[in-house]
Amino acid sequence: MYGAGDVRVETVPDPVIQQPTDAIVRAVRACVCGSDLHPYHSMPSAEHGAAMGHELIGVVEEIGAAVTTVRKGDFVIVPFAFSDNTCPFCREGVQTSCPHGGFFGPASGSGLQAELARVPQADGTLVVVPDLDPASASEPLLASLLTLSDVYLTGYHAAHMGRVASGKTVTVIGDGAVGLSAVLASSRLGAERIILMGRHASRTDLGVAWGATDIVAERGEEGIAKVMDLTGGEGSHVVLEAVGHLPACEQAYGVVRAGGVISRVGVPQYEAAPIGFGSLFGKNATLTGGPAPVRAYLEPAIRQVLEGEIDSGRVFDHTVGIDDVADGYASMDARETLKVMIGF
Amino acid sequence: MYGAGDVRVETVPDPVIQQPTDAIVRAVRACVCGSDLHPYHSMPSAEHGAAMGHELIGVVEEIGAAVTTVRKGDFVIVPFAFSDNTCPFCREGVQTSCPHGGFFGPASGSGLQAELARVPQADGTLVVVPDLDPASASEPLLASLLTLSDVYLTGYHAAHMGRVASGKTVTVIGDGAVGLSAVLASSRLGAERIILMGRHASRTDLGVAWGATDIVAERGEEGIAKVMDLTGGEGSHVVLEAVGHLPACEQAYGVVRAGGVISRVGVPQYEAAPIGFGSLFGKNATLTGGPAPVRAYLEPAIRQVLEGEIDSGRVFDHTVGIDDVADGYASMDARETLKVMIGF
Repeated sequence: MYGAGDVRVETVPDPVIQQPTDAIVRAVRACVCGSDLHPYHSMPSAEHGAAMGHELIGVVEEIGAAVTTVRKGDFVIVPFAFSDNTCPFCREGVQTSCPHGGFFGPASGSGLQAELARVPQADGTLVVVPDLDPASASEPLLASLLTLSDVYLTGYHAAHMGRVASGKTVTVIGDGAVGLSAVLASSRLGAERIILMGRHASRTDLGVAWGATDIVAERGEEGIAKVMDLTGGEGSHVVLEAVGHLPACEQAYGVVRAGGVISRVGVPQYEAAPIGFGSLFGKNATLTGGPAPVRAYLEPAIRQVLEGEIDSGRVFDHTVGIDDVADGYASMDARETLKVMIGF
Repeated sequence: MYGAGDVRVETVPDPVIQQPTDAIVRAVRACVCGSDLHPYHSMPSAEHGAAMGHELIGVVEEIGAAVTTVRKGDFVIVPFAFSDNTCPFCREGVQTSCPHGGFFGPASGSGLQAELARVPQADGTLVVVPDLDPASASEPLLASLLTLSDVYLTGYHAAHMGRVASGKTVTVIGDGAVGLSAVLASSRLGAERIILMGRHASRTDLGVAWGATDIVAERGEEGIAKVMDLTGGEGSHVVLEAVGHLPACEQAYGVVRAGGVISRVGVPQYEAAPIGFGSLFGKNATLTGGPAPVRAYLEPAIRQVLEGEIDSGRVFDHTVGIDDVADGYASMDARETLKVMIGF
């Protein structure tokens, strides 16, 4: 990406092993993330492009001398953050804060919207999909596995941190792919009622298929009033905020029940926000969330996909080849597509 | 209170039963709260005074026709918020959000720095101290019981919401009576290490007596660096913020560990604060806390005081008579005293 709206596909030198803990992975499927649209809107023009992409499933092509848990030919999930998975933070399940880790994409210079990718900390980062040949796997299965790289497990992280459980009313703000994933995760965690705030019928329909019990199309004060009405004036035990803009955050304060939890996974496009007596404190509301430590959740999630328990791949409604990635960004930005897969 | 620094003791008509659910309580001990100092600093001058005080232990003098759980002569704790204790929020342990409840002091017009007080929702609010005659109870026992009206259980609420548990490192910001109470509560909840940030030796000494393992006198960046150093660069699992000013809040972000919890009980003197990627989100830190639902914690806490398990009354280091309450405010404001009790 060279600036807002300026995505170019370029041929660059193949990545090579730089550290003995690296692996090189050949892409099977990658995709475009809602969070990629933030720089797509706001990145200043730059002379040198930023390597984009942080979601990938692929086959290990080469490993560094120190790598022991994956080997050439393994079919793996690449989480959007790499981590050593042995440090105190990783052991506590916060792999996104690993001091030896980092984020794929512009931050690390290793973009995953590419045919080949260098994966640092391969032992800590990559998880093998057992007994599956990607060449013969079905498209829906590959799509669902790809969601484990970020989007589904980000929705799951929201629900997990929000302490969604049976008997709880959950409000999901945002009908993007993460919001819909949060609906699916909440449903699996036993939420009694799931109110999805979104205004695109094609998206909220998938939300309903995944367990949303109520759809609220209104936003702002009107949307808040509608959710309060649906909850008998008491508000929602859990609010999952999957947008990242300040109005969504304020909507969350408006609908959260006293003693409830707001869990954010939309990357905040703001730094300061109301958290004083009138918004968060007076209600004893808890604010939680952050970048999902996908790695912490991968093994059981892979099993759930392989056993057909979750069909999280349904968020993909369009596929482009690597040469047409710019069109993929444009169509997601125009909301013509929900989430774009990249085939190779 | 008639304005900043302007506390007057006045003779007003005795409170009377207004609702059948009311009780009238005669004060045994009351006190001045750190949060009373906020209006003491900032209240605009007013023609009519605000009735101050929200912490009280006393004897029931009269009950309304609908009151069934307390009777004349009962020795009771009055929590700083009244509540019906039957509504959905009360049943979920968030009595401070009871729609039929409210806060003593200026907000409700019922100030507890007084000889007699009207207590709305008496059945839901008052808890009897069993088998104790206040006339023959020891001063330390009365002092500890008085802390259950607010200060100790506010410290406890911070620790409880912060999920303090064995093995955790806890940093307490603020060496006021609430901060010290949070040290005591953290200690009882099994915290492995308790770092108290405060610069008044007479106060931090009590913190050490109650289980603080480290004292950090520095503030701001210097204080943050000290705590990070003490925690091997990793930060504190739990941060209990018992001040309420923005710098304390920013200090909390600075020392919280990735995946950790900041629990606030200092009444925020700000509305907006940093909560974006650089402060809270990036670290997956959780922000929680609010006005303590003291009522939810009262029964076990009364037992703990009566059995001598907690000596939370040690926060009181000065007692005044009702006529000298203005001196009490002044001495707390000047930090000559930690917390001032009012005798009757």
